Amino acid sequence: MLLKIAVVGATGAVGKEALALLEKRALPIDTLRCFASARSAGKGLLFRGEEIGVEMLDARSFEGSDVVLFCAGSQVSKEWVSIALKPGARVVDCSSYFRMDPNVPLIIPEINGHVLNVEHRLIASPNCSTTIMLMALAPLHRAARIKRVVVATYQAASGAGAQAMKELQEETLCFLGGESYERSVMPFPYAFNLFTHNSHFHENGYAEEELKMLYETQKILDDPTIQVHATCVRVPVLRAHSEALNVTFEREMRVEEAYAILKEAPGVALLENRTQNRFPMPLDAMEQEAIYCGRIRKDPSHPNTLDLWVVGDQLLKGAALNAIQIIEQLSLLISRGCKLTG
Amino acid sequence: MLLKIAVVGATGAVGKEALALLEKRALPIDTLRCFASARSAGKGLLFRGEEIGVEMLDARSFEGSDVVLFCAGSQVSKEWVSIALKPGARVVDCSSYFRMDPNVPLIIPEINGHVLNVEHRLIASPNCSTTIMLMALAPLHRAARIKRVVVATYQAASGAGAQAMKELQEETLCFLGGESYERSVMPFPYAFNLFTHNSHFHENGYAEEELKMLYETQKILDDPTIQVHATCVRVPVLRAHSEALNVTFEREMRVEEAYAILKEAPGVALLENRTQNRFPMPLDAMEQEAIYCGRIRKDPSHPNTLDLWVVGDQLLKGAALNAIQIIEQLSLLISRGCKLTG
Repeated sequence: MLLKIAVVGATGAVGKEALALLEKRALPIDTLRCFASARSAGKGLLFRGEEIGVEMLDARSFEGSDVVLFCAGSQVSKEWVSIALKPGARVVDCSSYFRMDPNVPLIIPEINGHVLNVEHRLIASPNCSTTIMLMALAPLHRAARIKRVVVATYQAASGAGAQAMKELQEETLCFLGGESYERSVMPFPYAFNLFTHNSHFHENGYAEEELKMLYETQKILDDPTIQVHATCVRVPVLRAHSEALNVTFEREMRVEEAYAILKEAPGVALLENRTQNRFPMPLDAMEQEAIYCGRIRKDPSHPNTLDLWVVGDQLLKGAALNAIQIIEQLSLLISRGCKLTG
Repeated sequence: MLLKIAVVGATGAVGKEALALLEKRALPIDTLRCFASARSAGKGLLFRGEEIGVEMLDARSFEGSDVVLFCAGSQVSKEWVSIALKPGARVVDCSSYFRMDPNVPLIIPEINGHVLNVEHRLIASPNCSTTIMLMALAPLHRAARIKRVVVATYQAASGAGAQAMKELQEETLCFLGGESYERSVMPFPYAFNLFTHNSHFHENGYAEEELKMLYETQKILDDPTIQVHATCVRVPVLRAHSEALNVTFEREMRVEEAYAILKEAPGVALLENRTQNRFPMPLDAMEQEAIYCGRIRKDPSHPNTLDLWVVGDQLLKGAALNAIQIIEQLSLLISRGCKLTG
C-alpha cells in the first residue's frame, strides 16, 4: 500500500531530516506534500528527483493524506493536529503538545512499539533527551527494573532548531574575531559558554525539559514508580546530545551483564576503548542513526548502581528518525489491517 | 615581614594568573623570581612596573627563597620540590604529585585553613574540580554531613593549560572555515565537541580526575566516609568549570537552609533568577574570584537529597587564587611565629 504523506514544518531542522529519511528508507510513498510557515512557502524542495513546492497550511491541507508528520513546535500542533485528524489522516507528532495525553500513545518503536495498533490515529514521538536516554535504559530496565536515574545532560544547539545551530556558529565566529554579536534565538551567550536548558522554568526549580525526562520515561516504560532526576544543560555542540546517567536497579546489575544486554539492543551501538580513554562523543553520533553508549561502570557509592554515558543525534533518533520509524510501523499495521479486512 | 617568592611555571596559564594575583593583592613581597622551561627562559615578565627575567631551574635556584609556588605539572614538582625544600623554602604545590601524601596538608583556606601551622614546609593545593565543588559543599557538610555526591562536570580547556585554550579557539576557527586542523594538545576533536576528561584512564573505568574528586574531598573534609561519584567531561568552554551536583545528606537539608548557609559562605556567590531561567554560566565566573552557585532544588527521588549547580574560574579559585591564598595564610603564620620567637 502506497502512502500519501504530509510533513508540517518541512523546512525546519527536524523536517529536513525527516524528508532525507523518507527519501532513503523503504517506506512506500504515493505522494508527499510539504508545509511550512509563510517564510518558506513557495520554495521548492527536491525529493526523489522531483521538486515539491512548499505550501502554507489551510483548513483543507490534509484532505486525502494518510499520514501527517508534525515537525513544527507545540503551538502549530495545538492548532493544526485536530484539523489533520478530521478528514481521516493519521498524525505522528514530534512536538510535546500531546505527549502526556493519556489517550495518545508516546512511542519509541524499539521500546514500546507493541503498544501501537491500527486504531491509533494520533501518536506522539518523545522528547529528544528522553529518547536518547531510554534507548540504553529500556533494555536494562527489562532485565533488572530501574528504580532511579540521576542524569546530567550536555545538549546540542539543534534542539532549539536550525536557527540556533546557525546562531551558535555565527556567534562563535564573532567571539573569535573580537566582534560583538546580536543574538535572536538563544537567551544567553552561547559561544564557549553553557547554560541551564532554555525551556520554561518551573517554580519548583525544574526546567520543563527536566520534567519531560521524568514524566515521558514513566509513560514510555509504563512504570509510574521509576524516578528520573535530571539536570539539563545546553552546551556549545551542534547536533548530538550527551548524557551522564547514574542508574539504580532493584537488584545488582553487573557491568558485564549491562554490556551484554546493550550489545544486543536494537538501535544501540557500544563505542569504547578504555586504554585510549575513547568513549562516545557528539561528533561520533552526528548524522548517525544509532545511540552510542559506553563507560558502563559500577558506582561503589550506592548499592545496585551503575553509570552509563550515552550520545545520540538529536535530529535523528532524538526526533525525525523516531517519528519516521513510527510511520513505518503504522504503515505495516495499516497494510496488515487492509489484508485482514480485504 | 617581606617575602622572597619564586614561581615555577611562571609563563603557563596558572603561573600567569598567580603573578597577576601577587601583583594586585596585599601580600608583602621583597623579591620575586620567575622560572619556566627552556622555551620561555630569557623572556621578561612585567611585575609591579619592573621587568623580571624568566630563568631556567637549576640546583641553586631556590637559595634564599621564603616561598616557592609550583604551577607546572606533576613531573616538575616530582623533580624539583625536594630541591626547593632543602635550603629552607616553603613550597606551595599546585600539581597533584603530593596531594595524597599523608604528611602533606591539602588546603582550601576557607575550608581547612585551620590545619596549617608554621611547621608545614610543603602544602598542596587541590584539583580544580574538587576545589570548585567543595567551596559550595563544605559549608553544607558542616551543617548536615554529606554522605554521597553524584557529580557531572563540564570542564573548560584551561585545565589542560594555555596551549589547550589556544588550540580550542584555533580548531574552532578552522572548523567554521571548513578547514582541517592539526591538534597537538587534546587527544580528540574539541571544536563543538566534548569528551571524557583526558586524564589517565584507570582499569576500574574511572578517569584519574574522577578519583581525585573522591580522594581529595575525603582528605580536605577529613571524612573518609564521604562518597563522591564523578563523571568528568571536557566541554568546549575556555576557562570556567561547571558542575551538576546531586548531594545526599545525613538529615534533611531544606532548600532555604542551603541558600542561607551559602549566602554566608566565604568565597561563594549566589547567582540566580528563576523567572528568567538565569543561573551561573562559565562566562559569569570567568576571571572572577568567587565560586558561583545556584539552582538549589530538592531531589524528590531520594531522601535528604538536594541538587546544586556550581561554576568557578578554573585558573583562579581552581588553581592560582587558592595557592596564593595559601601563601597569604603562610605569611601570616610566619610573621606571627617571628613575633612569638622574636
